Formats: sequence, C-alpha cells, structure tokens
Amino acid sequence: MSKNHRKHNHRHSQRTRAVFEKQHPSVGASPGTLVISEDASKPAVRLIQYNADHVREEEIHDITALAGKANPEQVTWIDIQGLGDEQLLRTIAEMFQLHPLELEDIVNVPQRPKVEAYNGNLLIVTRMAMLHDAHLLEMDQVSIVLGSHFVLTFQEHYGDVLDAVRHRIRQDIGIIRKSGTDHLAYAILDATIDGYYPVLESFGERLEDLEDQIIACARPQALHTVHDIKRELLSIRRGIWPLREAVNTLVRDEHALISPTTRMHLRDCYDHCVQIIDVVETYRELAGGLMDLYLSSIASRQNDIMRVLTVIATIFMPLTFLAGVYGMNFDYMPELRKQWAYPTLMAGMTMIAGWMLLYFGRKGWLRQQ
Amino acid sequence: MSKNHRKHNHRHSQRTRAVFEKQHPSVGASPGTLVISEDASKPAVRLIQYNADHVREEEIHDITALAGKANPEQVTWIDIQGLGDEQLLRTIAEMFQLHPLELEDIVNVPQRPKVEAYNGNLLIVTRMAMLHDAHLLEMDQVSIVLGSHFVLTFQEHYGDVLDAVRHRIRQDIGIIRKSGTDHLAYAILDATIDGYYPVLESFGERLEDLEDQIIACARPQALHTVHDIKRELLSIRRGIWPLREAVNTLVRDEHALISPTTRMHLRDCYDHCVQIIDVVETYRELAGGLMDLYLSSIASRQNDIMRVLTVIATIFMPLTFLAGVYGMNFDYMPELRKQWAYPTLMAGMTMIAGWMLLYFGRKGWLRQQ
Amino acid sequence: MSKNHRKHNHRHSQRTRAVFEKQHPSVGASPGTLVISEDASKPAVRLIQYNADHVREEEIHDITALAGKANPEQVTWIDIQGLGDEQLLRTIAEMFQLHPLELEDIVNVPQRPKVEAYNGNLLIVTRMAMLHDAHLLEMDQVSIVLGSHFVLTFQEHYGDVLDAVRHRIRQDIGIIRKSGTDHLAYAILDATIDGYYPVLESFGERLEDLEDQIIACARPQALHTVHDIKRELLSIRRGIWPLREAVNTLVRDEHALISPTTRMHLRDCYDHCVQIIDVVETYRELAGGLMDLYLSSIASRQNDIMRVLTVIATIFMPLTFLAGVYGMNFDYMPELRKQWAYPTLMAGMTMIAGWMLLYFGRKGWLRQQ
Amino acid sequence: MSKNHRKHNHRHSQRTRAVFEKQHPSVGASPGTLVISEDASKPAVRLIQYNADHVREEEIHDITALAGKANPEQVTWIDIQGLGDEQLLRTIAEMFQLHPLELEDIVNVPQRPKVEAYNGNLLIVTRMAMLHDAHLLEMDQVSIVLGSHFVLTFQEHYGDVLDAVRHRIRQDIGIIRKSGTDHLAYAILDATIDGYYPVLESFGERLEDLEDQIIACARPQALHTVHDIKRELLSIRRGIWPLREAVNTLVRDEHALISPTTRMHLRDCYDHCVQIIDVVETYRELAGGLMDLYLSSIASRQNDIMRVLTVIATIFMPLTFLAGVYGMNFDYMPELRKQWAYPTLMAGMTMIAGWMLLYFGRKGWLRQQ
Amino acid sequence: MSKNHRKHNHRHSQRTRAVFEKQHPSVGASPGTLVISEDASKPAVRLIQYNADHVREEEIHDITALAGKANPEQVTWIDIQGLGDEQLLRTIAEMFQLHPLELEDIVNVPQRPKVEAYNGNLLIVTRMAMLHDAHLLEMDQVSIVLGSHFVLTFQEHYGDVLDAVRHRIRQDIGIIRKSGTDHLAYAILDATIDGYYPVLESFGERLEDLEDQIIACARPQALHTVHDIKRELLSIRRGIWPLREAVNTLVRDEHALISPTTRMHLRDCYDHCVQIIDVVETYRELAGGLMDLYLSSIASRQNDIMRVLTVIATIFMPLTFLAGVYGMNFDYMPELRKQWAYPTLMAGMTMIAGWMLLYFGRKGWLRQQ
Repeated sequence: MSKNHRKHNHRHSQRTRAVFEKQHPSVGASPGTLVISEDASKPAVRLIQYNADHVREEEIHDITALAGKANPEQVTWIDIQGLGDEQLLRTIAEMFQLHPLELEDIVNVPQRPKVEAYNGNLLIVTRMAMLHDAHLLEMDQVSIVLGSHFVLTFQEHYGDVLDAVRHRIRQDIGIIRKSGTDHLAYAILDATIDGYYPVLESFGERLEDLEDQIIACARPQALHTVHDIKRELLSIRRGIWPLREAVNTLVRDEHALISPTTRMHLRDCYDHCVQIIDVVETYRELAGGLMDLYLSSIASRQNDIMRVLTVIATIFMPLTFLAGVYGMNFDYMPELRKQWAYPTLMAGMTMIAGWMLLYFGRKGWLRQQ
Repeated sequence: MSKNHRKHNHRHSQRTRAVFEKQHPSVGASPGTLVISEDASKPAVRLIQYNADHVREEEIHDITALAGKANPEQVTWIDIQGLGDEQLLRTIAEMFQLHPLELEDIVNVPQRPKVEAYNGNLLIVTRMAMLHDAHLLEMDQVSIVLGSHFVLTFQEHYGDVLDAVRHRIRQDIGIIRKSGTDHLAYAILDATIDGYYPVLESFGERLEDLEDQIIACARPQALHTVHDIKRELLSIRRGIWPLREAVNTLVRDEHALISPTTRMHLRDCYDHCVQIIDVVETYRELAGGLMDLYLSSIASRQNDIMRVLTVIATIFMPLTFLAGVYGMNFDYMPELRKQWAYPTLMAGMTMIAGWMLLYFGRKGWLRQQ
Repeated sequence: MSKNHRKHNHRHSQRTRAVFEKQHPSVGASPGTLVISEDASKPAVRLIQYNADHVREEEIHDITALAGKANPEQVTWIDIQGLGDEQLLRTIAEMFQLHPLELEDIVNVPQRPKVEAYNGNLLIVTRMAMLHDAHLLEMDQVSIVLGSHFVLTFQEHYGDVLDAVRHRIRQDIGIIRKSGTDHLAYAILDATIDGYYPVLESFGERLEDLEDQIIACARPQALHTVHDIKRELLSIRRGIWPLREAVNTLVRDEHALISPTTRMHLRDCYDHCVQIIDVVETYRELAGGLMDLYLSSIASRQNDIMRVLTVIATIFMPLTFLAGVYGMNFDYMPELRKQWAYPTLMAGMTMIAGWMLLYFGRKGWLRQQ
Repeated sequence: MSKNHRKHNHRHSQRTRAVFEKQHPSVGASPGTLVISEDASKPAVRLIQYNADHVREEEIHDITALAGKANPEQVTWIDIQGLGDEQLLRTIAEMFQLHPLELEDIVNVPQRPKVEAYNGNLLIVTRMAMLHDAHLLEMDQVSIVLGSHFVLTFQEHYGDVLDAVRHRIRQDIGIIRKSGTDHLAYAILDATIDGYYPVLESFGERLEDLEDQIIACARPQALHTVHDIKRELLSIRRGIWPLREAVNTLVRDEHALISPTTRMHLRDCYDHCVQIIDVVETYRELAGGLMDLYLSSIASRQNDIMRVLTVIATIFMPLTFLAGVYGMNFDYMPELRKQWAYPTLMAGMTMIAGWMLLYFGRKGWLRQQ
Repeated sequence: MSKNHRKHNHRHSQRTRAVFEKQHPSVGASPGTLVISEDASKPAVRLIQYNADHVREEEIHDITALAGKANPEQVTWIDIQGLGDEQLLRTIAEMFQLHPLELEDIVNVPQRPKVEAYNGNLLIVTRMAMLHDAHLLEMDQVSIVLGSHFVLTFQEHYGDVLDAVRHRIRQDIGIIRKSGTDHLAYAILDATIDGYYPVLESFGERLEDLEDQIIACARPQALHTVHDIKRELLSIRRGIWPLREAVNTLVRDEHALISPTTRMHLRDCYDHCVQIIDVVETYRELAGGLMDLYLSSIASRQNDIMRVLTVIATIFMPLTFLAGVYGMNFDYMPELRKQWAYPTLMAGMTMIAGWMLLYFGRKGWLRQQ
C-alpha cells in the first residue's frame, strides 16, 4: 500500500470509502470518459508467463516491452496494481483490444461486480475484502479480463490476496500450470472470494466479544462498534450479492473461453458465494440482536438505578418529615417534654424503616437483578 | 428557476412536492385531459440541430417557426422547459404527431418513469434529481420523445442537468455528433441518471455529519434531519426504481429506433441505475441505524442523568435525616449535651458519605460512561 | 347516503367496516346464497341509454320496465345503488343472465377486487374510496358487469364517484358517446381509481400536519391519529393491491368484449394503480417514521424533565443538608457562636450552588435541547 | 369434545397445541408408521348415503358393516371423528384402498394442508378453526379422501363445522343431492374455510376492545393479550397459507375426479382463502401496531409521572432549603430578630412558588396530556 | 463424542460453532485441498451389508479390507464417523471413485446442504441436529454418497441419529431390507430430518418457560436466553433452508439411481422440511415477540417504580416543608405561641396527605398494575 493511500486512512474517509466511493465522471460526460483521481497510485505492472514446462516472472517498467509478448503457447498474466496513469492504461487497452466501455468499468472503480462479454474477451469485475491493522476493512475492485491466451488483472491499490495463486504457479502446485487461461481466471476469482472468509471470521470474533461486553456492562462504545460493524457488513454485502449473480452467470451460460472443467470449479465458487452471503446475513441479524440486547440492558440498568433511588427516598423522606415535625418550635408540643418521647420516636422510626425494607424485599427490589 | 417557482420553496410545500405531487385531473375526467396549474412556468423552447458537420442552436419564441424544421438529414432536438401553455403544447404534439395519452403523460407530471411506444415514436419518462441551495432536493420529470429524426424533451421547471450534453454537441466531443437521435436520447437519459450521483454524495456527507453529531451529543434536531433524509431518500427511491425497470425494457426489447450500439450504452445506464438503487437502499439502512443510535444515546444519557440524581439523593438523604434528628427539640436527648457528640456525628456522616461513594464507585456509577 | 346507513357512522363501527366487513353467509351455506343485512339500503335503479346521436336517462321504479330495454344499437347502463332487495336483484340477474356465483360476488360485499368471465359477460369487482366529512374513509365495492351492449353497476350504498362519467355522457365530452360498452366500463373503472387521489392527498396533508404537531409537541393524541391513519392506509392497500392485479389481467389477457383501444386506455389505469400503491406504501413508511419520531420526542422530553429534576435536587440537597447541620441542637457547636459563621456559610453555599451550575452548564444540561 | 380431551385444555397445553403439535414418529421410524397417542378419542363413525332421490344416515358401531356399502349409484360419505384405534383405521384404509403414506398423513396430525393424488383417489388435508368458550382457539386437521363414489373424512377430535353440510344433504338444499362426490368434497372444504370467518371476526372484536383499553389505560394485561392474539394469528396463518396453495392446485390442475363445475366452485373457495389471508395479515399488522401503541402509552405515562415529581420537587426543594436556613441556630443571624422578617420570607416563598408554577405552566407541564 | 471434541464444549466455542465453522482452506489454495484440523476425531469405519435374506455388520479397522467388498447383489453401507485421517479418506475416495471436489465437500465441513451428481454417483450433503445435555445444540454435516450398490456416509463427530435405521436393517422392519441403495439413502436422509423434531420441541418448551418467566418477572437472564435461542434458531434455519431445496431437487429431477417409489417417499421428506421451516420461522417470531414482551415489562415495571417514588415525594415534600417552616427561629412568629397551632397544623398535614392519596387513588397510581 502506497504512502499516498495510507494518509487517507483516518476514520472519516474510511467510512466514506466503504459505502460510496464511485469515481463517477462529471454529470453528462461522454461515455468512455476515465476518471483518475490525483492521488491515485502509479501502476505497477508485473508479467507472469507459464505453461506446463516453464514459468517466467518479470516487473515491467516500460510498457512498450509488453507488445507481442502474449502468445498462444503460453498463459500470459499481466497484473496491474494502481490506476494512476491514463496513458499507460489506454496503451494496454489498445494492445489487448479492450472496448472503451470495458476500460471505463476497469478504471472508474468501484463498479458493481458483474460479468460482461466484449469483443471476444470476458470482463469479470469482482471485489476483494482485506483487513488492514486487524480492524480496518478495505474493499478493492479487481477487474479480470480473460482472453484466449492472456489474463489481465487490474486493481486500484497495491497489495492483494493473490499471492497464493502466484505461489501455486511458481511451485507448480495442483493443475494450474497444466490448464489454460480460464483456469487462471477461475483461480484468481476463487482467491478473491476465499479472501472473504478470514474477514468474516474476524467479524464473528468481534461480534462475540461485543456480546460478552454488552452482557457484562452495556457501554455506549459497544453500541458504536455494533453500528460500525453493521455498516461494514452492509458494505461487504453490497460486494458479495452481485458477485454471486456474476459467478452464477459464468456457471450457467456457456462461453467459448470457459471449459466444462472450469465451469465445474466455478460451481464451487458459486457455493462459496452463497455461503458467504448466508454468513453475512446471519451476522447482520446477530448485530441487530446485539442492538436490542444493548437497549434492554440499558433499560434494565435504569430500573436498577431507579429502584435504588426509590428505596432510599421512600425510607428517608417519611423519617426526615418526622424529624422535621419534632424540630418545630411550637410552645405547646407536650410530647417534647416527655422523657420517653425521644426513644419511642427513634424506635418508631426504626420500625418504619424496617417495615419498608421488608416490603421492598418482598417486592424483590433489594435483590440485584 | 423562475421567480414563480421559487416563491413556493418553503419547507412545507417542498415536503409535499417530494412525496405526492401528481397533477391528476379531476376524478372521472375524460382520458387525455391536460392539467395545467395556474402558476406553471411559461414554456421556453430551444432548438438544437446538428449533424457531423455543423450545429445550430436557437431560442424559439414563435412556435409556428418550428413547422417543417425537422428533417431526416439532421438530428433535431427541441427542448421545452415549463409546461404552462396548453395551446403551445398541443401545437407541438400535433406537429410531431404525439398520441393524446402521450401528451397527457408529459403534462400531468409526475408520472412513474416508464417507456412506452406510441405511433412509431418512443416516450421515455425519466426523473432528474437536483439540489437547490445545497440541501433542497428537487425532483423533476423529464419526458423524452424519441422519433426517427427528432428528439423532444419536456420538463416542468427551468434548469436541468443537460448542459454537459449540449456542451458535447457544441464542441463535438465524443461520438454524439456522428450518431443519430437514439444516441442523443441515450445521452440525455444518461445525464439525468448521472445527476443522481452528486445528490447521493451530498446525502452521504449529511449522514456522516449526523452520525458524528449523534455520537457527540444526541439532539432532537439531528433526529428531525434523519427523518427528513429518510423522506427524501424515499422520494429518490420512488423515482429510481421504476426508472431501472424502464431502462431494462429499453435494453431488453428490440426497438426499431434504437441501434445495437446504443443498446450497449444503455446497458451501462442500467448498471448505473442498479448502483444508485444499491446506494439508496444502503443509505436508508444507515438512516435507520442512526435512528437506533439516537434512541440508544438518549437512553444512555438518561441513565447518566439518573445516576447523578441517585448518587446525590442517596448520599444526602440519610445525612439530612440525621441532621434532622439532632435538630429535634425533645427535652431529653442526652447526646445533645455531650461535648464529643457533634464531632462524632460529623465524623460518622463523613464515613457514611465516603462509604457510599466507595460503593457507587465500585458499581461504576461515578465513572463517565 | 341513507339515514339508515348514517346512524352507524360512529367511530367503532367505522373501524370495523374498514378492516373486516364481509357479509359472509353462515358457515357451510350452499354456494350462491345471498346475504342481505336488515338495514341494507333499498336499491335505487337508474337507466342511462346513449349512442353517438342521443342520450336518455331515467329513474326506474318498476324493475319489470327494464325488460327488453337493452338493445344492440345503444349502450345501456343500469346503475343499481343499494343492495337491500333480494327479489329485485335476482330479477335483474335473470334478465341479464348473470351466473349465480356472479350474483353472490356482487351482493356479498366486500369481495377482493377481481375480474372474472362468466357466460359471455365480464364481472369487474372494484372498490371506490370516498371521504365523508373530510376525515371519515369509506370504501365501497362497485361491481361492474360488462356485456356486449349493456353495463350494470352495483354498489352497496348511495352516492358514488361516477358523476363525472355521467356528465361526460350527457354533455358528449370526449369519445365516450362514440364508443361501446367496453369504453363505458373503462370510464367507470378509471373514475373509481382516480377517486383514490383526493383521498390520498387528504392523508398526505394529515401526515404533514401530524409531523408538524409531533415536532412542536408530542401528545398522545397525535399517536392515536397516526395509528388511525395506518389502519386506514392498510384498508386502502387491501383494496388497491388486488385491483392492480385485476386491471393487469384486463390489460394482458385478450377478451372479446374489450377492444384494443380500450386496452390501451386500461394500460393507463394500470399505471395509476401502480402509482397509488407507490403513494400508499410511501405513506405507510412515513406513518411508521412518525411513530419513531413520536417515541424519540417523548424520550428527549423525558431527558429534559429528568435534567430539571436532577439539577434542582443536586443543587438544593447539599445546601439543605448544610442548613440542617447548623439547625442541630448540640450544646457544643462552637461555630454557632462565631459572628462570622453565618455570612461565611451563606457565602459557601452560594459558591457551591454557583460551582454546580457551572458544572451543569459545561455538561450542557442547562441549555434547552 | 371428549372428556379425555377437555382435561388438557389449560392454558399451557393450549399454547403448545397451537404452535407445535405434530405427532411425529420416533426419529428414523419406518415410513408409514402410525403414531396414536394414548389419550386419543375412540373413533365415532357415521355413514351418510344419498342420491337425488333419498338419503340415509347411520352411526356405525361395527366397522365390518361398512364392507360393500359404497356403490356407484350413491354418494357415500363416511365421517370418522377420533383417531384412537389403529386397527379400525387400518381396516378402513384397506377397505377403501388407501396408500400407507396416505394413512400416515391422515393419522399423524397435524400435517401441512395439501392435496395429493394416490392410487386413483385424492387426499385433501385441510385444517378447521373453531373457538371453544368464545376465546380458546382450536385448530383440527380434517383429512378428506375423495374417491369416485365415496368421500371419507377424518378428524382428531369430536365436533366439527360440517353440520350445515349435513343439513343441506338431509333437507336437499341447493344442488348437493344432485351432484357427485366431488361436490361433496368441495362442500366440506368450503365449510372448513368458511369456518375461519367467525373466528376472525372474534379476533377483530378482541383487537378493537384492546385498542380501546390501551388508549384508555395501558395495563400489562392488555399486552399479554396482544401477545396471545399474535401467537394465535400465527397459528391460523400457518394453517391457511398452505391451504391456499392446496386449493389453488385443485383449481389449476385438471383431475379426473373433479368436474369443471366443481372446479368453478373451488375458484370461489380459493378467493375466500386469499381473503382470509388478507384479514390475518391485516390483523397481525394491527396487533403489531397495538404493541407500539402500548409502548408509547407507557412512555407518555412515564413522562406524566416524572413531570409531577419534577414539579413538586422543583417547587418544594428551594422552599425547604430556605426554611432550613432560618432554622439554623447561629447566634448572630440578625434577620431572625426583625419583626418583618417572617412575613417577608413567607411572601418571598409564595412568590418563588408562584413564579415556578407560572414557568411550568408556560412549559405545558401542568396540563394533563 | 471424543474427549478431544468435548473439551471445546464451553460456551464460547459453542457459539462460534453454531454460526461459523467452515474449515475453509487457506486463501487461494488449490481446489480439492482438504483441511483437517489437528484435533479432528480419528475415523471409525463400520460396514453394514444386507439384502432381503441376510445382514452382516462389521467394524473395519484396516481400511484395505474394504477393497472388493461392495458387490451388486447386496446393499453395502459404509459409515465413516470422524474425519481425522486424510490418507484413509483419500483411500476410500479412490476405492469408490469419488471426484476430488466431492471429497472436498465431504471433508471441509460444513458445506451448505446440497445435492450434486458426480461420475455416476450422487452426493447428498445434509446436516443433522442434536441436543447435548438437553440444551446444547450441535449441528453436524452428514455427507451421503449414493452409488449403484453402495452408500457411504461421512460425519465429523462420533454419534448420530441413525441408530433407528440400523435397527430397522438388523430386525428387518418395513421394506428397507427388500429395497435398494436409494431407499437406504432416503432412510438416512429421513432420519436426519426427523431428528429436527425433538430439537424443535425442546426449543418450544424453552420458549414457553421463558414466556411464563417474563410475564411473572422480567429478568435480564431471560433476555440472554431469548438471544441464545434466536441465535440457535438462526443456525438451524441455515441448515434446513438449503436442505429443503436439496430434497426438492431430488424429488423433481429424475435421476437414474433413484426409483419412482423412493421419489414418492422423498416427497414426504420434503413435506417434513417445509413443516420444520414453518416451525422455525414461527419460533423466531415468538422469540421476537418475547423480546418485545420483555422490553414492555421492563417499561411497565419502571412506571411502577416511578409511581412509588412520585407518590412518596409528592406527599412528604410539602409536609416536610411545612415542618421546616415552623422549625424556623424567627423571634416574631406569633402562631408558634398559640396552643391550638400545633394540633391544627398536624390536622392540616393529615388532610393534605389524605387529599393527595385520594388524588393519586383516583388517578389509579396506587393500584398495583
């Protein structure tokens, strides 16, 4: 993650990012207009080429070096991180014959996750979820362009969840090196979807901790955390629902670029999406339940407070009144003159207090609830 | 915006406008009856004619001058702002052979956004969203009539979000000048939809500010603002949901007037509608969450208030009672005569108070929560 | 509206009427059983016959006079208001060959709005909404039987929203006189649907007034009104939802009695139904929002009340305690004898009170919120 | 209703019955296992045989007497009330060639209402609603087996809503005697559905009474009643929703045993189901509204209580403090010695109290709200 | 259940298990990767082979002994409990030609319940519900692999709900011994579904007990139990909803391995799923209703507490003030000198107190509510 990006990571902008961050062109702009913000990261381009026999990995600093690299005998994966150079992006688009609307979808992030076919290649827009510093949710669009012998991936910020895929290519684990571009695209999509699991697990833990906190002692901070979690779940949900639809499209519709074997693997991806949605919805309900739990804890606590006040006031107000009566300065208050009066009064007061405590005890107001 | 219109912009009428403003004919009126309110703005008619080679723009003051202007070699866009002249509207309708029900849909605003085919032209009813003075939401119907070589647009009030489209025509930006009437209609529709983004962004900011305010200090004013925002989101939602359906109809159904290229662009419009709906629904949920946050803040605050009251009462009531006891005027209260009595009592009172503070401190009632 | 009916218009029966008023036969009764309540209004029968050239209107007192009146050259509209005469209704049913189940649907009101074809005629069950005395919602079933050259309308009570239709027939406004029975049925249906607009407008105004009231000062009465409005909206919704389905059936399914032109007009009716549903749902959400607003106003107000109490108690309890201390009658309280003691104490008390006011002021408890 | 059954009618078991009463076999039991509880009523079997010319009714005590009774010239209705004799049920099942799964559905009550075809007969599982002692909802499964010349009905407890059907057969009312078994099955189904109306009416009345009570004075008992009504509506809803589906299946799917005329009558049944669902959903919303009304009444009332407390405390605390000050025993309190001091103080106190009452009056705290 | 597993059964892990326990591979792992946790139970393999004539049951300790055991003349059921040995699982998978993705679904529990066809066999993923120690819900995945002459079942922990099925095989009860593998798979599926009934019954009882408790005295503990029940119902619901879909797939889609008779039995399974869903949804609504009931009980109780406080304060504050007035030390307070003053004052005070009690009694504040 660039320094550039990190400086925006204070709470306020983070919130905005999660809910509404579309870099939409100015109203009425021509279709195909690219919107590149000033502090966008400069693109880092990395090339991985492999087939069953060998693999080659390279950082590309001069984009023109890419020309003619892609060839039908190898799978070529070009991975672009950072969208901060319009010229470079347009060059790549031209090189691989991307449609202008396709490029717009790649650059003007975030789009809704979707699958669209253009000019013989397939654009898969997905969204990955990552946690920074344990608690800071970051959702980044990953755009996958699947061609017959190349795969392009674009993302806005540096850093991704795809290292495991690269590792499988380098070390020749599983069938990835023996398979075509469609399997690579599947592997990338699968990795972005799998990336939701650890994020959700961390949400699960936070919800449990919160529940324990709220049951122990309901503080407003807990409520604000619930509110934050609900907003972040909302944001994850907005990413995963359309992703499910998109993956379903890939599974259901036959497309020349995707082999039946890969389609079977995609069915697995689809199951994961559905399961993630299940968990998100469950967490949203749990978070809603915590809100209720909080409110009722507050209400119970208020009853506790009021009970203390009422017991104290009910016991001492009558007694204080009695003391006040015998503090009056009337000349003719015969009982003031009797020797037995004071002890009698004190005994009476004790009895009144005792009787009231008994009454409140029976009512259950003295027990801690 | 005309003076005429502006004078109605006080809060009350604004609220009415947002939710229910149909200029419905009197009950049982003949179909095709036009309802024109007295203070409707006089129509301002503007003609833009262009093809790839040239462009001409003109304010039309005499409506008869329009006759015969439209011709197959050019795209003719007639833009009517203000619906306050039935005669003029009927003349235009006749000139371009609009169906009576079509004219009714154009004049008796607001209709639900929809697409309907009449007599070989296509009526697209959309709704644009604008903010006046930063916070005042205004939603206006824009009716687009798409013919083979003309496009008519009608709107109720002066002012629109289409200047960027006019600018692209004048400056020949993008492919608009090389394309037909269907592209113009698409560009207009696209601009009205794009116009929702800045409006939603402003809602997003207001929601964030409100959240900060409510967390800092929950005042009733914040709640009224949440209530207002919810109502306005409701109003936006009532515009954008049927618009999504309408655009979907345009994308899905083949219509002679709309070319495949334009249909592909409309698919983009459709994506934007869906994304706007996503954001609106998310904001509605956030607004609902703020309501909960407010209520629980209020409840927490009440607990704080009650705790203060209870602590004070619980400490001072017993002490006051003791002071009352020794203020009684009984003749025989032997302890009153002892020299050590007063300091002992004061020490006892201090101990009682100290013990109670300790008790409340342990209970956590003295901490600010 | 008959005297008979009016006497039932107290609040309680009105509530029942809105939600549950089916005149269902006794359990297990034979199908086709008519249920006529004792205080049902006597039917008033009115005949309107017209074609493009002339129009004739007549009150029918002797039902046998109707026999043979209907003829293919004219449109015959027989309008029956009041369902209090089983014999008369059976005679009419026989005269126009209505099916027994059809008659049951007409008489045992209210049925769900629906469209059903019987024996070559079409039964359209709709429901009209009227306001009595500005605030009293009344929903009445209107049953329209559409035959090839006659239209019958039945309703339970006197008074309807169809005067404008009669006026258009009498004055030959629009195309109604030139059109057939299907256009008349459409006009009647359209008038009943249009009749919802003014009712909803009145609801809109009541909701706005309520909002203003609740913001100004939340009284329980306001809440009861919200509750009433919600119930009435529920009742309108129960009428309009199935009506939308029914009109949709008319638009979608081809039926010999309905011409394509009329079907196009019905599409307009359908749009109105959808728009009314939109408004009803919006109002229901607004009413729900008012409930929340009310509850949070109450909660805020309670905080205000508690703050006043707490501030007063916190200031005066310690002071009263101090006064109590120096009101004690111990013989040896040396400070009682000092001349400076009283002014010093008073100054101390003022300082304590001042310090507390300052503290509460800083906490924001003294400001009106 | 048997004594046996009645003894279980205390509140607790009633609640269980309403929500969860499936006599499910032990886990993993063989399909077709019948579960008969120990205190099930002994079956009472009644035979009604009729055609257009004559009718015969008989209590059957020896089940073997039934053999060969059913014949194609008559409609044979065998009505079994009570499921407490496995042997008898198996004999009947064999006699009329019922499928084992069919018998399981009949005996292991309650099943979800449904329609299933087995071995050339049709099993219709429906559920009837009855009120015992005005307020006690009882829902019993009625299983109807429709064969070509016989109809069997089974129910768990004695007593039903079918007396009107028997009456129509005995007295030859309507077309029932002239029709076949399908009409009888329809008549029985129709009677069970019609039986919901009086039950719902009673719910309607209870809801209205509750509303009046809550508005007058919100007691916790009212809330418990709302809670009970909600649970019972839930239970009715669980019966009527699948019944609607089942009747719809009968209307939609052509089945050899059901004539077109009967199908038309079933359409009417279907309408009733939909209407009952409408009413149930409406009542559920009303009950939810009452819950809100109750909570806000409680909240309002609390405000009233707090206002009284605050007004009293705010007036008397400062006054008591003043009285306390002049009750102090300092030697040098010069104002104690002045003759005008006491009346002045009393006047001052009256002014303070008056001013506070004025203040609270202006704030509206003295008005009953 | 192994010791290994049991030690995790404290409350916290139990909660996690219920909601989110997917043993997902590390992000980006190759498809087909098996995830086996360290403390997974070692597999216990049991073989049951039967046909109509004989049955054989065997614990398998050496997995190679299984090779060649399955033969077309018998139904072979291999039951694997515990997934803690990757090698063993891979051996079995190879032996019975399971697809790698199939094995992944079996091992990486829990998957969503589903039905998938692979390589000529059918994978049915279901989930069983069990209660440990009466209140501890445990949901375990059961994976059923249905081949032409074998059935494999896999589950994570020891212990299941299938003993009744084994008993039916051993004792030759019902048709299971005469039927093929499809009936065995059905019987297993049916047993897992039937296993939900006793679990739900226990939930029903807990909800009823809770309701009684809350009505008697609303303690926070009751609320926490409601919260726990809601979470567990959520967890059951997440198991049963997709199971319904899966069973529906089995009923609807024709598959070579499943005979029409078994499909008919599966229809029964489907009905049970739907009924369980009904009950779960009903319980969720009831639990929600209890939450409301709790909150309103708390609110009512608070009113009771406040009423006591207010009555006490309202009576004693004015009296104490009066006593304070006559305790003042002014030299000139003539009434102090009168003999009648003291009794008069006491009588006045009694009257004030009595009048106030009367007032509060009329207001209904003295009644227990």
